[in-house]
Order: sequence, then C-alpha cells, then structure tokens
Amino acid sequence: MGHSALCPGTFDPVTNGHLDVIERASGQFDTVVAAVLDNPVKDPLFTMDERVAMLKEAVSALANVEVDTASGLLVEYARTRGATAIVKGLRAISDFEFELAMAHMNRHLAGVETLFIPAAPEWAYVSSSLVKEVARLGGDVTGLVPAFVQERLAEKLGRTA
Amino acid sequence: MGHSALCPGTFDPVTNGHLDVIERASGQFDTVVAAVLDNPVKDPLFTMDERVAMLKEAVSALANVEVDTASGLLVEYARTRGATAIVKGLRAISDFEFELAMAHMNRHLAGVETLFIPAAPEWAYVSSSLVKEVARLGGDVTGLVPAFVQERLAEKLGRTA
Amino acid sequence: MGHSALCPGTFDPVTNGHLDVIERASGQFDTVVAAVLDNPVKDPLFTMDERVAMLKEAVSALANVEVDTASGLLVEYARTRGATAIVKGLRAISDFEFELAMAHMNRHLAGVETLFIPAAPEWAYVSSSLVKEVARLGGDVTGLVPAFVQERLAEKLGRTA
Amino acid sequence: MGHSALCPGTFDPVTNGHLDVIERASGQFDTVVAAVLDNPVKDPLFTMDERVAMLKEAVSALANVEVDTASGLLVEYARTRGATAIVKGLRAISDFEFELAMAHMNRHLAGVETLFIPAAPEWAYVSSSLVKEVARLGGDVTGLVPAFVQERLAEKLGRTA
Amino acid sequence: MGHSALCPGTFDPVTNGHLDVIERASGQFDTVVAAVLDNPVKDPLFTMDERVAMLKEAVSALANVEVDTASGLLVEYARTRGATAIVKGLRAISDFEFELAMAHMNRHLAGVETLFIPAAPEWAYVSSSLVKEVARLGGDVTGLVPAFVQERLAEKLGRTA
Amino acid sequence: MGHSALCPGTFDPVTNGHLDVIERASGQFDTVVAAVLDNPVKDPLFTMDERVAMLKEAVSALANVEVDTASGLLVEYARTRGATAIVKGLRAISDFEFELAMAHMNRHLAGVETLFIPAAPEWAYVSSSLVKEVARLGGDVTGLVPAFVQERLAEKLGRTA
Repeated sequence: MGHSALCPGTFDPVTNGHLDVIERASGQFDTVVAAVLDNPVKDPLFTMDERVAMLKEAVSALANVEVDTASGLLVEYARTRGATAIVKGLRAISDFEFELAMAHMNRHLAGVETLFIPAAPEWAYVSSSLVKEVARLGGDVTGLVPAFVQERLAEKLGRTA
Repeated sequence: MGHSALCPGTFDPVTNGHLDVIERASGQFDTVVAAVLDNPVKDPLFTMDERVAMLKEAVSALANVEVDTASGLLVEYARTRGATAIVKGLRAISDFEFELAMAHMNRHLAGVETLFIPAAPEWAYVSSSLVKEVARLGGDVTGLVPAFVQERLAEKLGRTA
Repeated sequence: MGHSALCPGTFDPVTNGHLDVIERASGQFDTVVAAVLDNPVKDPLFTMDERVAMLKEAVSALANVEVDTASGLLVEYARTRGATAIVKGLRAISDFEFELAMAHMNRHLAGVETLFIPAAPEWAYVSSSLVKEVARLGGDVTGLVPAFVQERLAEKLGRTA
Repeated sequence: MGHSALCPGTFDPVTNGHLDVIERASGQFDTVVAAVLDNPVKDPLFTMDERVAMLKEAVSALANVEVDTASGLLVEYARTRGATAIVKGLRAISDFEFELAMAHMNRHLAGVETLFIPAAPEWAYVSSSLVKEVARLGGDVTGLVPAFVQERLAEKLGRTA
Repeated sequence: MGHSALCPGTFDPVTNGHLDVIERASGQFDTVVAAVLDNPVKDPLFTMDERVAMLKEAVSALANVEVDTASGLLVEYARTRGATAIVKGLRAISDFEFELAMAHMNRHLAGVETLFIPAAPEWAYVSSSLVKEVARLGGDVTGLVPAFVQERLAEKLGRTA
Repeated sequence: MGHSALCPGTFDPVTNGHLDVIERASGQFDTVVAAVLDNPVKDPLFTMDERVAMLKEAVSALANVEVDTASGLLVEYARTRGATAIVKGLRAISDFEFELAMAHMNRHLAGVETLFIPAAPEWAYVSSSLVKEVARLGGDVTGLVPAFVQERLAEKLGRTA
C-alpha cells in the first residue's frame, strides 16, 4: 500500500515555493495529497474552485500527487485519506513556532505526524500574501509563481500582466 | 505582609497551561492574584463573568490565589493590589519578544518587574485560541483544559462534549 | 552626488526609536529620505498630514534628512528618489524575519538593498503601537516620544498630557 | 523497493529522545538506517562499538530499523545506502539554524533531502550531553534514557546506578 | 520563613548586568543566595576566591543577599539551601533555549523552578566574556562593571586601568 | 571625503557569501576596507598571508575596496581608518544575537555603527567552516567559493581539486 503524505495549504495562489515543497515531498512518499483548505477565517483573493484549478494545473506533471479539498479538523481529513504524515515547508522561525504547536496538537489529537522540509533558499522569501501585495501594487512577480498564475493574478487584480 | 504576584490573562477559557503557571507561581509568592483582563480589542468567546467563574472554579484548591478582574493600565492595577511582580508563562520565541517589550515598558512606567516561568513541555503547545479552534471543529480537547471547561466549551459552541 | 538612503515607516506617531535610527542613518549616507508610507491597510491614529508634520518637526535639526510621502511599490519610489538603500532599525527576531523577506523581495524586484541598524537598547521596547496603547490607557510616555508628539497624542486621545 | 531514510547521530549515548525520533521515522518510511557517526572532532564518552551496541539493543523491537556506522561525507554514505532522505529530530531554534544550513548543503552537494520531525515535548530538553553532565554529577537520569543505558553510564562514570 | 531564590553564575567577573538581576531578584524574594559555581569545565580568569570576594563587595549593600559557593548538581545545592527557585537574567534567544532546557531538567530532577528576569536593555549586551575580551584588548569597560572590578581586571591583565 | 565602511572577518578562506556582502557594501559606501582579523583565539587553516592574498585576488575587480589586516580592538582600527560603520552580512538568528551584542558594544566603546546586510538566500548556508568541513571530507565545493580558492583548499588539504 505504501506511505501517503498530506500537503495542506490555502494556496491563494500557489507559489513556486509551494510547488517546490510538494515536488520534494512526492519524492519521499508513495503518494501525496495536496489539500486546499476551506478556511472560513481567511478571506482569500481566489475562490476555492480557482485555487484548486491552479494547483491542479501546477502539479499536473507529478504522477503521484493528487489535489483535493479539505475542511474541518485536518487530522480527521488525514485519517480518511490514509495519510500518516503532514508535510510542510519551513521558511522562518515564527513559522516554525506556530507550526510546531500545530504539529504537537495534531499528534496529540490523532497520532498524525508532521514532517518539515526546509524551504529552498531561493523561495524562502516567497509567500502567497507577499506575492499578492507586490502584484496589487504593480510589481513584477515573474519567477515567483508559475506563468499562468501570474496571468490569473493580473486578471483578478484588473491589471495587465 | 510578603510578596505578591500578578498572573494576568484573557483566560478565554482557562487552560491547563494557565493553571500550571498559576500553581507554580503560587509556590514562589505569598499571594497570587490571577487577573482576568477586560481587553476591549480582543473579541472573547466567553463573557467576562463566565471567564471569571471558570477561573475561580479552576483555582479553588489553591489557598493563596485570588481571582480578580483588571482593566486599564496593568501596572496601575498592579500598584493598587500591592503586587511587585507580574508572572507570565513563556511558551515560545515570539511570545518572548512581545512579552519582553511589555516587560520593559511596565518596568519603565512603574517599576513593576516581570518574571517568566517556562511553560511545562506538555503544555507548550496549548493555547486558548488553539483549544477553541480544535473544539469548534469537533476535536477532542480532553486533558488540555479542566473537564468542566470542556463542558462549557461544548455548550457555548452548540456541541455535545 | 553621493549615496542616498530611504527610511520608510508609518510614523504613527514618530517615536524616539525612529529618530535614533534616522539620525544614525544620516551619519552614514550623504542624504536620507524619511518617507511616510500611505498604507491603506493600516488604520492610523494620525492623518498623513499630521504624521508628516510631526516627522518634519522632529528631524528639523538634521541638515541632510528630507521628509516625504510614499505610496505604491516602495522600490519604485526608491528608484525615483535615487536611493540605493533602504535603512531600517531592527528591534527583534520577529521583526527580523518579516524584514528579511521584504529585503529579499525588494532586492529581487529592483536591486534595492536593505541595511539594518540595530535599535539602541534603550529604544528596543518602544514602538508606535505600544506608545499609543499606553497613552490611550493614561500611561506616561515621557521620554519615549518627543515632547511635542506627547502633546499631540494627548490632544488626539482627548486627554491632558 | 520503497523509501529509505537515514537517522544519523553520535548517540553518545542514545537517549529516549533519539529513540522517539527513530521510531516515528520508522512509521513513515519503508526502512530506516540509524547511523552512528564516527566524528573525529567530538570526543565521545563511549567508544564506537559501545555506542553501536547500545543503539542496537535500544531499537531491537523495530523491524524496519537497521543500525550501521558512517564516516566521511554523510551524503556519500546516504547514496551508498540508497537513502533519499535524512530524518532529524528538531528541538530548538539554534538546532534549527545549524540543521538548516546542513540540510541546504546536503541538498546542494547530492540532492539528499532532510526532513525534520519535531521532538516530542517531553523529550525537548533531553540531549546526550545534558544527560552525561547530570549523570556525572550524580543526578538521576531515570526515564531520560533506556534503563540499560543508565547502567552503562553508571559503570562508565564509576558510579553505582 | 519565606521564599528564597538562588542566583547562580560563574561571575568571572561580576558585571553590572549580574548585579542588576541580583538586586531585582532581592526585591521579589525574602532572601537571595548568589552562588559562585565551581565549574571544572570552564577555565576562569579569576580564582574562586577572587570571584567570591568581588561578588561580596558588589552586593554588600543588599541586606537580604548572601554570597556562597556551589559545586555538583545545582538542584542538590538548591535543596540544601532551602531555595525553591533559581532566578536567571535573560538576555537573548540562544540564552533562552539553553536555559529553558536546563530549567526543564532541574524541574524534572528535583522540582526546582526557574524564573527568568529580562535583562535591563542597557545591560543586554554585557557579558563577562565580552567584558574580558574588551579589557584584554585595552578597551575601556567603565560603566559595564563596578569600578573596583575594573581595577582588578586591569591588574589581572597586566594593564593600567 | 565620503563615507567609509569596514567589512571585518577571518576569511579562512573567503567564500562567495563574503564576496557578495563586500560587493554590495561597495555599492553603498565610497570606500570599503575588507579587514582580515588576526584573531589569536581561532586556529585558522590558512595563514594570515594566504588569507590576505586570496581576499585581494577575489576583490581585485572592485575599485573602491581595499584589503588590509587588523588586530587589537576593532573599533580602534576603524577609527584609525576613518571608517564610521562596520558592515556585516547576516545569515541567521544566532548570528544576529552575537552580532547585536558586538554592535552595541562597539557603539558603546567608540560610537562606531554596525550595519547589517541580509545574506543573499543562495549564500545563507555557506560559511568558511562548513566549506572547510565539506572539502576535508572530499565533497565538492564548486560554486561556494571562487575557483582559485577551491584549488588552494585542495592543495592545503592534500587532495586534488
């Protein structure tokens, strides 16, 4: 059957940093589920459907990666999918602390492990929110997100790419 | 007369982590005042009265701990209560930095010291906000808060414990 | 011609910590532009005009410091002003991480460098937001901001200084 | 064939913290190689043979874990063993930074990934060096290392357990 | 009887930062024992007797502070002295992590608490080792250590103060 | 006359990370002095003369950068060279804390400022000591140091590059 990992995120939108983590996770596990979270608290720029569509297009070349949506308690979702590990990219110290608390909580709640992959240095400063802020102000996000995501950002923000 | 310490917090709701800090502080000071803060910025799940009632029930076995409410400038409150120190649990680096700035400010404003007690490892990942998020999504918070708090959370969130 | 640096901020209001950084930057560069950011996300206490006026008054003794306003992408503004470096005070670890991501992004976008000056120890706990919170609750902010800023804070908050 | 992970360490001696990481890694990978490093710089208390023997005894119940020794460049060793990932426990921020630099270097040198498992809270303060220091001063290390390791420590240090 | 705290250190030599912590601790506890550690690993500049003499002179004005020496397991010493808490100054994040591990270990070994007092901003960059390095290179350490310590440093290092 | 900055280091050997910081500093200051420190405590692999020669060769294309040697108190050296600022690359949190203490000390001793340039992400994991360790074990350090430094490392370590 093999080992399956979960890569959860809001993916609003997917960045090259996210893709690097998903691709590297896909090299360590038999299957990877990239799960777009339906988080009612955050107010995303893209709809759930748009985020899922972009993520699917971005990972289409990775044979053992599946895109799905998740809501509710993440460890419940992990259990229903048969994933024994959550894999997260790790960028910074403050990331680390929040993620560490979540990791301990998820292990406490359901025995689901969290494994951290250090973000590649070239993506360490790239986040969805910073990409959106730059794009909103007319900055060039080439190379930070896939080309087609750059176009959707421009459309969404009413700018030409 | 002796030394008196202040353990301030929103306590929305009180967790086993809070109780661990209060109990340990009560072993180092003659009296401890656990003060529920009336912070207009935060939007608590429980009312002030509910938070006070839960905290009172939770510390009822500790003879030298008194529960009170506090509003306004914390160092003014500390002065009126005769407390010479604020005692805080310390969980994480980002905690540490914010708390450090507050500690220096409080010492600058009124000469009130802040002493930090390292959170016990088993509570280091437990916070009121994470407990509320888990409970809201139907997760089991047994062992993270006192049993009666778990019931109040379930009632408040319209779920059965 | 010489080297020119940019000291950006919301300055809501300017604190003695800001002034320390601007003055020290003015000793390392031929000219310094202190730029008040028109950030639509933040909800400042003082208007843009008030913030600019206070900053101008506070740096009036520094011959090579000019006050200006900036909006849009900061690196675009830096380019139009001929500034090759952004200079920031550095207070804390969490500061450091966010600022580091911004610094890498700004270098990626437009080759603009960011140089960090460590905040003087006596200002390390002073921030505009903490000063406002203390002033709002009636605390004494003498020595944390210039005297005339203290007066404007009192007026704005409907208190006597 | 499956995925294989490497858990390297000096294991001088193996602690309950090490064992927790190895056991959790063994649940995520098909095979795990726990490799005792022959590091000429460190001056270990136990010989290589003693460290290997203790580690073997400690992991004997884990069917998919093999104990081996490694010297030279770790990524070369990983390659010869067919391991595509190094798995490390992560205890603290300073750990994190050194480990992060090593992880990037190992990926740069040979494409070997490093995955981090957050140390369980109850082991976060346990390290071989702290255990040795406590044991040397006559402190009781029960529960921090396996019982048989506690005996070997006592023998080695010329004390009765 | 009251509460007693332990302020341990190598005090090689005592700095104004140490004195600030001891004085502030003496305001929170009935008695404070400042204990000079006989640590065989470190290679101190001053002998045990010299360090004790300097510390005694430095705290002579504090009525409830006693100077002593300690060796072996610190929690054993704390127990024999009836101290229920160790009080430490906290300067930096890396301090924090090592101290946190020690604090958890000491609580595990003997139920002795550790309370942290944030170093005053003006002493946050002062350590015995940095003071010694500066003095060795002929730098002026006025204001970082008591005047009489400055003289002993000059004598010890064969320089005129 | 203009502003002059000091880039101090052991440069044992110079890495591409060092060169990136020196080059970027040379774009912000009129002149930059790259000073090889004669630190008696460290035990360098290369002699002072070798380190100076490599650094000179590496910065030969930068017109406003001069290589020199420095011993004794760094701020004294800065003063004799007319440098008003020390410029350092900043890689990591633990770097940051030690460097911060040094920066405050140097400002206290002689009013010399320290400015930090964030290390470029691609060099964030490169240090002289890690490069030496990898080279010693036969790893390939291409791209981490200049090509001619790679050759000197191979000669020094008795290996063919």
